[in-house]
Amino acid sequence: MNIDELGGIAIAVADAARPVPLRYFRKPLAVEAKGDLSPVTIADRETELAMRAVLDARCPDHGVYGEEHGQQGLDRRFVWVIDPIDGTKSFISGMPLFTTLIALLDEGRPVLGVIDVPAMGERYHAVRGKGAFRDGTPISVSGCRRLAEAVVYLAGHEPGDGGLAGRMARLRGRGRLERYAYDGFAYAQLASGHVDIMIETDLEPYDYMALVNVVEEAGGTITDWSGEPLSLNSKGDVLATASRELHDEVLGLLGD
Amino acid sequence: MNIDELGGIAIAVADAARPVPLRYFRKPLAVEAKGDLSPVTIADRETELAMRAVLDARCPDHGVYGEEHGQQGLDRRFVWVIDPIDGTKSFISGMPLFTTLIALLDEGRPVLGVIDVPAMGERYHAVRGKGAFRDGTPISVSGCRRLAEAVVYLAGHEPGDGGLAGRMARLRGRGRLERYAYDGFAYAQLASGHVDIMIETDLEPYDYMALVNVVEEAGGTITDWSGEPLSLNSKGDVLATASRELHDEVLGLLGD
Repeated sequence: MNIDELGGIAIAVADAARPVPLRYFRKPLAVEAKGDLSPVTIADRETELAMRAVLDARCPDHGVYGEEHGQQGLDRRFVWVIDPIDGTKSFISGMPLFTTLIALLDEGRPVLGVIDVPAMGERYHAVRGKGAFRDGTPISVSGCRRLAEAVVYLAGHEPGDGGLAGRMARLRGRGRLERYAYDGFAYAQLASGHVDIMIETDLEPYDYMALVNVVEEAGGTITDWSGEPLSLNSKGDVLATASRELHDEVLGLLGD
Repeated sequence: MNIDELGGIAIAVADAARPVPLRYFRKPLAVEAKGDLSPVTIADRETELAMRAVLDARCPDHGVYGEEHGQQGLDRRFVWVIDPIDGTKSFISGMPLFTTLIALLDEGRPVLGVIDVPAMGERYHAVRGKGAFRDGTPISVSGCRRLAEAVVYLAGHEPGDGGLAGRMARLRGRGRLERYAYDGFAYAQLASGHVDIMIETDLEPYDYMALVNVVEEAGGTITDWSGEPLSLNSKGDVLATASRELHDEVLGLLGD
């Protein structure tokens, strides 16, 4: 399969996923029949099943690393890494910024990413070497090179994050604008040139693998907090920035 | 003028405002001709002018308290309190949760509120005694009564907020879900039953007056941090909750 065929599968997976979360978002719940599962858990599972149905039909020999329904075939050349609802806390609280994330790894290396935003009807996607797009229109990072000029987004730490939160806090008060934000949507805005730094901790591969190509193809940089490329084995500390220079400045601050 | 006529004016103001910010949101800038104004400032001013044009035509004898173009006639019976773009930091960073806020005060007391969400095409509105609505559909708060069960939204404090941030931090780690959020959109989600607590500091009257009827008509409670009703003279510390019991519990924690 060539990359265009694979890209077509990714779009088909995103199309299959999109309507499912919206059946549960902001809706009154009639879920007693499903036991004590939360509506977001039900939405998560049903969305992943819809995505897997496309993968099973179109590329049954590929591996899948999902959030809700486990991992299969991680030793294969192509592995899909999917998160049906990234931003479940946004979903629960009526915020329309939850996303569906799709990545494809080729021998462990991400070659395409999709950030789909069901409640906004927006889709960000990128294939390695072919640019990044929002709904078909090319996007690019701002190119901001200095922290002092940067729009800085940080994930709000949870009580008990301890040392990692402390390291992230070294960025506070240093940018030109600072906000807390969460999840894949913020990286899409970085790739679109509106946010210059996004930093988070404790992510899972299905939270970050889809972001890699979108950010990189838009001209940005995304690594772990050591500056290493993100992989299935990363610890889950993610830094994305609008330029290599900005990335180096922030990595310097984060260093022990 | 009766309340139905006044409600009609509020809707006309919201309709006039809605398209203006979207002309600037996420758009490349060609604003050199306007000097060194930021695009969000230009969008803010143009939106407020569009809103004021409706008020000037429909009720020239009313007062207006705006963000960008000042205050007129605050001694009159009816005063409109308007914020063309609430959430300018969201606007700047590509986040579609910025809103247009409209309140009407009758002898200083809010009698209607509109929270319009241009980038989502959503509108929340309420008239005192007549319920709260999203796009015409009735909304109501969750009714959550205990902090331990609450979805807690806090405004991320800025470096230097000092004592107020410290008081707000007393809520941290006590709810069932906790997030940072900002601005009018979060109150709309509280009024819709998805968020149980929203707390902020340092707001201006145009930031909070439009929220009052939307939250109260949905069954929620909104006051300053002393439990006093919000007015043009409030200090700008705002607490909204999904029930009176929850409100009292949080006020108890915030007390000196």
